[in-house]
Amino acid sequence: MADNTVYRASTTAPVNIAVVKYWGKRDAKLNLPTNSSLSVTLAQSDLRTLTTASCSATYPEGDTLILNGEPSDVSGARTQACFRELRARRAALEAADPSLPKLSTMPLRIVSENNFPTAAGLASSAAGFAALVRAIANLYELPASPSELSLIARQGSGSACRSLFGGYVAWRMGEKADGSDSLAVQVAEASHWPEMRALILVVSAAKKGVSSTSGMQQTVATSGLFKERIATVVPKHMEAMEKAIKERDFATFAEITMRDSNSFHATCADTYPPIFYMNDVSRAAIRAVEQINDAAGRTVAAYTFDAGPNAVIYYLEQDTDIVVGTLYSVLGAGIDGWKQSIVESLKQPAVTLDEAVAGLLKGGVSRVIMTGVGEGPQKTDEYLVAEDGTPVKR
Amino acid sequence: MADNTVYRASTTAPVNIAVVKYWGKRDAKLNLPTNSSLSVTLAQSDLRTLTTASCSATYPEGDTLILNGEPSDVSGARTQACFRELRARRAALEAADPSLPKLSTMPLRIVSENNFPTAAGLASSAAGFAALVRAIANLYELPASPSELSLIARQGSGSACRSLFGGYVAWRMGEKADGSDSLAVQVAEASHWPEMRALILVVSAAKKGVSSTSGMQQTVATSGLFKERIATVVPKHMEAMEKAIKERDFATFAEITMRDSNSFHATCADTYPPIFYMNDVSRAAIRAVEQINDAAGRTVAAYTFDAGPNAVIYYLEQDTDIVVGTLYSVLGAGIDGWKQSIVESLKQPAVTLDEAVAGLLKGGVSRVIMTGVGEGPQKTDEYLVAEDGTPVKR
Repeated sequence: MADNTVYRASTTAPVNIAVVKYWGKRDAKLNLPTNSSLSVTLAQSDLRTLTTASCSATYPEGDTLILNGEPSDVSGARTQACFRELRARRAALEAADPSLPKLSTMPLRIVSENNFPTAAGLASSAAGFAALVRAIANLYELPASPSELSLIARQGSGSACRSLFGGYVAWRMGEKADGSDSLAVQVAEASHWPEMRALILVVSAAKKGVSSTSGMQQTVATSGLFKERIATVVPKHMEAMEKAIKERDFATFAEITMRDSNSFHATCADTYPPIFYMNDVSRAAIRAVEQINDAAGRTVAAYTFDAGPNAVIYYLEQDTDIVVGTLYSVLGAGIDGWKQSIVESLKQPAVTLDEAVAGLLKGGVSRVIMTGVGEGPQKTDEYLVAEDGTPVKR
Repeated sequence: MADNTVYRASTTAPVNIAVVKYWGKRDAKLNLPTNSSLSVTLAQSDLRTLTTASCSATYPEGDTLILNGEPSDVSGARTQACFRELRARRAALEAADPSLPKLSTMPLRIVSENNFPTAAGLASSAAGFAALVRAIANLYELPASPSELSLIARQGSGSACRSLFGGYVAWRMGEKADGSDSLAVQVAEASHWPEMRALILVVSAAKKGVSSTSGMQQTVATSGLFKERIATVVPKHMEAMEKAIKERDFATFAEITMRDSNSFHATCADTYPPIFYMNDVSRAAIRAVEQINDAAGRTVAAYTFDAGPNAVIYYLEQDTDIVVGTLYSVLGAGIDGWKQSIVESLKQPAVTLDEAVAGLLKGGVSRVIMTGVGEGPQKTDEYLVAEDGTPVKR
């Protein structure tokens, strides 16, 4: 008798923002990086992807994906690699235990959505692929550890491997040609250093810059300075960053975060033709952080920039007044994203930023996102596919 | 009987714009660089310093300098080093030939002026120290060659050593601790490749950036990528650039010029805290050059940036229509600096630049300077000190 069951599993997955950047592939097909990287996983209450993976013998032929309400192509090599790897592991379980339903043979129907505006221009692919892999692994009841799953998510989107853990996460570049040792490991739980906060200044770019995938290829191919970053700079930053996190040493955490962001964007500027992700507003955010730290007389804030103009400013909860207070006083209540409970209780007088810096920020920051360090993927009973297999409309 | 003569000598000296940049000192006192550099000397009809050096036993005690009509301090170590070196050489001549007037013992009165607005934000120290050294050498009738004088001018301002020659000039970094082999040599006469042109887009900076003297010290001290530029990138650029100039190979000249400017600014961005000399308008100039080259189907223009936001665009005379024509069509006749004879005879339709790029340039370029490769210092009978020793008022 045929199995008409609709099998379902749901998970959420977080965004992560690197403090030692991933930039450069040594193998584009397997997404093997030229260097290790390290990131902070951000709280899912603020930024997360919710994904339901389902499968059923009753589904029409072919795997499908609905992303933020829109059908999304799954034929890409990266998505296919994830499906293939996960099905192979499920098939192995089914071969070992014939009593298991043959989920590996059924079409997949996956529905996914983010709780943050795409307009924010945050790389959602990391959370997206982490959620996709985690949800299917749950559906298939795979015994795989997060690190094992990170090997699969990495093939979908490099930085996605780091979103399979909460807290402070390192992606070890590994050495093997097959990539079997290029995976993510947790450096520290979120609870080890729960005071870490992130204020994201969303900066509207005049036009979309070079995609990170093609950008990093161009840098590897043309930058005369890049190999020094890989050979010397990043290994030093990784070691110092892991130590700083273990010791909860914010001053060092901040300095390495800022130096590594500078080093990464320097290699972009050294690419031929040059790649510029930061603009004058981004640079004003750097000056603002420098001026806040100078006024504080110690390092209370650190900037970092991914492949775009948005500034991510890390700070500790106890320094909210001076860091958030200064930027709130410049940017004002007129833009979205402030947490009322926080901005209403700001005490100490804000730092007065240099006029040119304040003017650029006021004119160029379109919204903020207030968040902090958070947990890894969470299994959930919230489903985006109904029991009968129909995608949930929102 | 006392010698009441006022001895005078006048010279002009040119500005030079490096295509392989000087950035980093291995000895700050002697101005010894971490790397060799190479520049194009610009035509003095457009940009020059005129300096008259005079001396007389009738002058009151103490050397004096009037710069663009204002008394200027000569007590700085760099100016003093130039005076000391030149006097020592004169004193040697006087010792060898007692019939010579004892100019080395007389106070110096030096008057200097530029024919270009300081507002242009062009580093005038190179032309200034080259003219100062050349004028005093003329006054003292020193037999010194330009390369010998470049050893002295270098101690006033590093890049000044390259302004003692016309055409295409290399500053060999040298190896000796005393700097006696760190001097300028001519790679090619202006007449070897006279078609070289430069269009300078003067970009008003929000505020003055870090001075190049302190900036390069910070880069040497803090950039993790800098040593790779010095050890590998620059030596490769120097070799390729000299070959390109000898062969009049503009495509290679242009690529190395752009790559070296990118590499230099990348090491500034990798400095901690980061140094940014370029702004969004500067970056728009880079995109404009890329778009002009793409439209031409070959390399007709090259950008380079010194320690400021101004773009210097090198091109060949035969490509004036597409290079100047495109930028003139965007910037319009409303700003100063266009040469009427050139812009009135522009033929071929201009390249249409991307809107964002055109908008940034139109809003941010305050004037242009049109010039080209030119000759070295010229002796002149135009004096800024009258026969009776009084500074000439203008």
